[in-house]
Amino acid sequence: MSEKQYYQHHVFFCLNHREEGRPCCADKGAQTAQEHAKKRIKQLDLSGQGKVRINKAGCLDRCEEGPVLVVYPEGTWYTYIDNEDINEIIDVHLVGGKIVERLKI
Amino acid sequence: MSEKQYYQHHVFFCLNHREEGRPCCADKGAQTAQEHAKKRIKQLDLSGQGKVRINKAGCLDRCEEGPVLVVYPEGTWYTYIDNEDINEIIDVHLVGGKIVERLKI
Repeated sequence: MSEKQYYQHHVFFCLNHREEGRPCCADKGAQTAQEHAKKRIKQLDLSGQGKVRINKAGCLDRCEEGPVLVVYPEGTWYTYIDNEDINEIIDVHLVGGKIVERLKI
Repeated sequence: MSEKQYYQHHVFFCLNHREEGRPCCADKGAQTAQEHAKKRIKQLDLSGQGKVRINKAGCLDRCEEGPVLVVYPEGTWYTYIDNEDINEIIDVHLVGGKIVERLKI
């Protein structure tokens, strides 16, 4: 399983919305953050095969720690507050290849 | 980045629906397959942290090869036709740890 990955970094934003009381990422700005990340990756010309893919996902089941995203294949989980946090994850992790310890969960 | 993964296998089914002509996974039974996989993993008591998570995802951008799913952290991509194919991916890969070469893309 050591062959080249289709995407170098495949990022999944939990966009799940819950009605029944358990916290959900949708109520914490997940959609805005995902759209911002997708746009910024495109602006940086990092979109596509062999590079980065920003994806929407259903519930990643870490609701209480949300909003959350996960970066594969490395399997690094992050939470975030705003677009500045998203930019830091993009600049430091997706471009720079280093973990953003501050936001890691 | 070698620490333990939150999920041993994190499976993302593309459920994207397109209107504009490009093929899409939603038109090829993706939702039924995702629901089947989720149910079967639960029946096998494989759901949860340290085990398996079956997720919904937006467009994974391999539309012409669809329907597609990807298993992380290994980054193995599969296509499938029906629930028998899904069962084979579950039994051979998620339980047995071997690639289903027949369905790999």
